[in-house]
Amino acid sequence: MPVHAYYNPQNHGPYEHYALGDLLLISGQTLRDCELAVATYGQLNAAKDNAILIPTWYSGTSRIIHDVFVGSGRPIDPEKYFIIIVNQLGSGLSSSPHNTAEPQARGRFPAIAVADDVSAQERLVTEVFGVNQLALVMGGSMGAQQAYEWAVRFPARVRRLAAIAGTARTSEVNQLIAEAILHSLRSDPAFCAGDYRSASDLSAGLVQHARLMTLHGLSPAFFEQQHYRALGFNSVAAFVEGFMTPYFAPMDPNALITQLEKWRTADAGHLCNGDLPAALARITARTLVLPIQQDLYFPPAACEADARLIKGAHYQALSCPYGHLGLFAMDAQWLAQVDEALRALLDE
Amino acid sequence: MPVHAYYNPQNHGPYEHYALGDLLLISGQTLRDCELAVATYGQLNAAKDNAILIPTWYSGTSRIIHDVFVGSGRPIDPEKYFIIIVNQLGSGLSSSPHNTAEPQARGRFPAIAVADDVSAQERLVTEVFGVNQLALVMGGSMGAQQAYEWAVRFPARVRRLAAIAGTARTSEVNQLIAEAILHSLRSDPAFCAGDYRSASDLSAGLVQHARLMTLHGLSPAFFEQQHYRALGFNSVAAFVEGFMTPYFAPMDPNALITQLEKWRTADAGHLCNGDLPAALARITARTLVLPIQQDLYFPPAACEADARLIKGAHYQALSCPYGHLGLFAMDAQWLAQVDEALRALLDE
Repeated sequence: MPVHAYYNPQNHGPYEHYALGDLLLISGQTLRDCELAVATYGQLNAAKDNAILIPTWYSGTSRIIHDVFVGSGRPIDPEKYFIIIVNQLGSGLSSSPHNTAEPQARGRFPAIAVADDVSAQERLVTEVFGVNQLALVMGGSMGAQQAYEWAVRFPARVRRLAAIAGTARTSEVNQLIAEAILHSLRSDPAFCAGDYRSASDLSAGLVQHARLMTLHGLSPAFFEQQHYRALGFNSVAAFVEGFMTPYFAPMDPNALITQLEKWRTADAGHLCNGDLPAALARITARTLVLPIQQDLYFPPAACEADARLIKGAHYQALSCPYGHLGLFAMDAQWLAQVDEALRALLDE
Repeated sequence: MPVHAYYNPQNHGPYEHYALGDLLLISGQTLRDCELAVATYGQLNAAKDNAILIPTWYSGTSRIIHDVFVGSGRPIDPEKYFIIIVNQLGSGLSSSPHNTAEPQARGRFPAIAVADDVSAQERLVTEVFGVNQLALVMGGSMGAQQAYEWAVRFPARVRRLAAIAGTARTSEVNQLIAEAILHSLRSDPAFCAGDYRSASDLSAGLVQHARLMTLHGLSPAFFEQQHYRALGFNSVAAFVEGFMTPYFAPMDPNALITQLEKWRTADAGHLCNGDLPAALARITARTLVLPIQQDLYFPPAACEADARLIKGAHYQALSCPYGHLGLFAMDAQWLAQVDEALRALLDE
């Protein structure tokens, strides 16, 4: 794959590429020469029953997933488990608009669904690693959406499920949020249907994207209690300018759009013709549902509604004043509670 | 003033125009030939002490202000009071980008501040109506911001103050919201620095504007509890498409931008070099602070902080699942509580 100023192992590694060949998408289209960028930690045991799968969330890559969740002595322990962190399709590291050849390059990259990520991941897990059942599939945000898809579609392959700050189906208001964020990028006059010359030509759109990610990614409590000060910023404007904007600025808008469309359309109910209760009733995994109380994308009520539809699910709303972006684990107290809940799940 | 397809007495009347001549703005610029569109109800008494002033909120005009608050037998009673509803500058009815002559037409309309509205209104009240003290200055949202400016700047002219769902200073996160909404209009490729040929050329920007107004104008409870059904819509998307989008679609983007810039920069503390506590300490009016508990623009905590800085202020957070747009008075229970609080204030 071509070298990219942002999407490379120096910034996001280590990871390996796995070539899966053509991937049939649920849209009926085919993604050609599908590749997954995968980071693994620890060793697969002889019984092949100690694998944990963690798909990435929106705009994040395997590096931050590792940094937030994986650690020796922690529940997601590379000394006990074989941990597979898969960068989602369109993440910029796995098959994405900028690294895919014509006729599927850039603005012609096909629309991908969360279900397509899971199709690719299932082939990786079974064909490449020879694992029939995962000890745990877990994720945060869009990672949780992929984890739900796994547990619904392949119940026998998922022994445990942990959905952190994410829902099985994107709510209607969350769809509207995703539409607004999509518009911020697509409406930039330089977008040119994805054939912009350089991502930096879309800097105005990316600044608006950062504004919108700030307004729902953080929580009212984050602003009212001025938690941005703990991150080294003395105003909301300074936080947006010094943290949110530069965080997203080097990313490829086409990649963000691919992920946003997955976010907007995520629905584990698609397996049962849109009947989400029927879909969630298929889950046999021991399930942990861990929303963030202050989350504006995936509010606790929506997560609790999922949990109620899953047999034996354990539901626990954790407080984190950062809101959804608490997933970045700036709040040690929140992270300690997540670890405690994951440890209890893995010990079952 | 020229006839406009939306901003006319058929849609928004009745109202009268009052020509104030040139208005010196706090920016140092001058707005030429300033006119206010004003609706009045009831009669000014001989003592001239029964006048109530109500400035309009964002995108609303005197008609909706009348419909929400004014009524015989209600506290804002035209049989007892002389009620002056002033359409704010840039509202489309008073001096606005589309009805102002060159060299201040359209994209060249000067930036206006909430303080400038109050300058114009004070001339109207004293010079035109000969009123030295208003029995009440009240408003919702940006109307509350104008009411605060009045009470701080002209304490002796304001006997009572009622601030509904608005703060004396736009919070930093509310500034960010206003910036995002501003961007939705200004970034439309057809905007042309305000010299678009027709507002309908900016339909994509206006749709995004409607999305953003939906995401913060309503509340999470509105979506979770599906209150849009009570308005005749069976999904969030249908509500955005059938209510929010057509509501804003006929408005002039330059007018919305003028108002948004006032919203973004509102700060009653400007009178004391940014020292808001010192500014609010100037208020001598009997003050009622009435936030909406579910408001995402002007959350109760911010309103309560204002109230604490005003001597003897009565603070009461009212619940309304609609959030900020509860100001449209779809919720009779909310409106009844507002009336009760206003009646108590006026009876003092």
